[in-house]
Amino acid sequence: MYKKIINGIKPVSKEWVNRAWARLDNLSKPKRSLGYLEEMVARVVAMYEEERPRIKKKAVYVFVGDHGIVAEGVSAYPQEVTALMVKNFLAGGAGINVLSRRAGADVYVVDIGMKEELGDAPGFIRRNIKRSTANMAKGPAMTRDDAEKAIDAGIEIALNASDNGVNMVATGEMGIGNTTPSSALYSLLLPAALADVTDKGTGLEDEGIRLKIKAIEKSIEINSHLMEDPVSILAAVGGFEIAGICGLCLGAASRRMVVVVDGFISSAGALVAMRICPAVKDYLFFAHKSSEKGHMIFCEKEGIRPILDLDLRLGEGTGAACAMQIIEDAVYIYNEMATFDDVGIDAGA
Amino acid sequence: MYKKIINGIKPVSKEWVNRAWARLDNLSKPKRSLGYLEEMVARVVAMYEEERPRIKKKAVYVFVGDHGIVAEGVSAYPQEVTALMVKNFLAGGAGINVLSRRAGADVYVVDIGMKEELGDAPGFIRRNIKRSTANMAKGPAMTRDDAEKAIDAGIEIALNASDNGVNMVATGEMGIGNTTPSSALYSLLLPAALADVTDKGTGLEDEGIRLKIKAIEKSIEINSHLMEDPVSILAAVGGFEIAGICGLCLGAASRRMVVVVDGFISSAGALVAMRICPAVKDYLFFAHKSSEKGHMIFCEKEGIRPILDLDLRLGEGTGAACAMQIIEDAVYIYNEMATFDDVGIDAGA
Repeated sequence: MYKKIINGIKPVSKEWVNRAWARLDNLSKPKRSLGYLEEMVARVVAMYEEERPRIKKKAVYVFVGDHGIVAEGVSAYPQEVTALMVKNFLAGGAGINVLSRRAGADVYVVDIGMKEELGDAPGFIRRNIKRSTANMAKGPAMTRDDAEKAIDAGIEIALNASDNGVNMVATGEMGIGNTTPSSALYSLLLPAALADVTDKGTGLEDEGIRLKIKAIEKSIEINSHLMEDPVSILAAVGGFEIAGICGLCLGAASRRMVVVVDGFISSAGALVAMRICPAVKDYLFFAHKSSEKGHMIFCEKEGIRPILDLDLRLGEGTGAACAMQIIEDAVYIYNEMATFDDVGIDAGA
Repeated sequence: MYKKIINGIKPVSKEWVNRAWARLDNLSKPKRSLGYLEEMVARVVAMYEEERPRIKKKAVYVFVGDHGIVAEGVSAYPQEVTALMVKNFLAGGAGINVLSRRAGADVYVVDIGMKEELGDAPGFIRRNIKRSTANMAKGPAMTRDDAEKAIDAGIEIALNASDNGVNMVATGEMGIGNTTPSSALYSLLLPAALADVTDKGTGLEDEGIRLKIKAIEKSIEINSHLMEDPVSILAAVGGFEIAGICGLCLGAASRRMVVVVDGFISSAGALVAMRICPAVKDYLFFAHKSSEKGHMIFCEKEGIRPILDLDLRLGEGTGAACAMQIIEDAVYIYNEMATFDDVGIDAGA
């Protein structure tokens, strides 16, 4: 399915960006004095192709997967925490719930690769492909077929959201161990030295980081014969939630939705999407600079300016929920500010 | 009046900060994984001295003054723009109006030193001390008495706000030419080399910046005999709106309100307040890193971490209105997130 979808992803048009700047430069403020807010809304106008962009409905998708690689001791938390946190999301008590309420966004939790099976619940989307990835230090994390299924699940969720009037989505994730496949993907897809994109995740010490790097090296080595394209790399050393986020980005871009990508792990999913289809990037905002060190390398290499820099490293989509508010601020500025003509000031002064 | 008020400004207590951290470390997230959001709310808890901090009512105060120094050609815009923009504020069409609506804050415009006299209007606080400062390149911008009156006006506005249930205020300003006195104040009060804290303001080119530096040098030289303490420096080379912001910071801190300081000019007012009474700093958040280069020097020298970095240089309080939302996000996190005990995860993992 993803191959069909990427044909429908069109880069945003310069003409719409320029139209947005024409209006921005006539708002009652010194030219470009709202800095990055102006750049953000110019992009939104071009994504939506609307004279007055309207954020209709916002949704945060928290993709959840477990990871076989935790057997190698790469995480400070036990695997059971994944399901416990999902219950917390569904009960509305987690960081992402609080911040999404603040942003006026609905939260959906997607079981795409959780070990534990949970029953139906409001806001819970059951699209499980497999109950955890395999240990990638011993073979591929996913089969190529399963990785494609996970991407397709993300795409379908995006298309569904669009059909239901959502036009701004944020990515989030939960999965004990998931900084490990993320680092593997950055190292292979940017590319970058593994040591530069591997960090403490959720609380590792120096010794733990060394172990984690070793586990990733082993994983890349053992799967090297499988790595032909971005999707096969994702299958070999990625994760289900990362694949789902990749799919969400692709599906959303094909419908000209605004995508707000959270931090380190979400950006790994976005990176896979960008390698599958470069035009997808036109629809992505990167919410914040994660405190995971590899994230800055990603941003620098890809010429990305994260909106916030708050040392967040929680994931779940929390940074994206914060950043949504700033993007929406920019949209309101664009739609509601008086122009120089209204006020009687010469804009050229 | 300000001397009496500063006696009432108490540093926040370590005990309350520690109490806040005890709760933060038991919320259902890896320790400190919400980074700067956690630091922000720990400070709010200590300002309010409340187990569950509640932002009751928010208000943005836009202090407006004109500047005699514009006769030296230091601004790219004509002085008339000050009053035109005030009319825009009062009509609700400016950037600060839009962003304050988004933040759920009321906007008040304070004529503290405008050249043009405007009649009564809703949200317009008429506390004019004088119709513009004098040209500081030829003598003091204000008499010491007038500077004190302007500080007192800011204090009274803060006390009034507090009496009316406001417990979070943001500073804003408007005044053609007002980056010039701000640069003078930074250079004298930080201290810093004048060239390092003087920048393009609202659209100067290189030649204009050189002229501006010269005008400030002349102002500092001609008024050097008057500079005995922070208030006399403010009188000599400051402005009415800067004095008003200084007073607002002092008055708000004396009532344990949260103060969100906007960008370059507002921070100059806050700096004067910090020099008058160092404890005031405990109640200040600095909203954003202004694109005016001297602002970063201020932040570095004073150990301040601005909340946002969006290349804003509009003033009015726009950055503060954006940042208010982030601080409020942090407060919601603190009050509404489930704890590890609720979720059944061992926090020490």
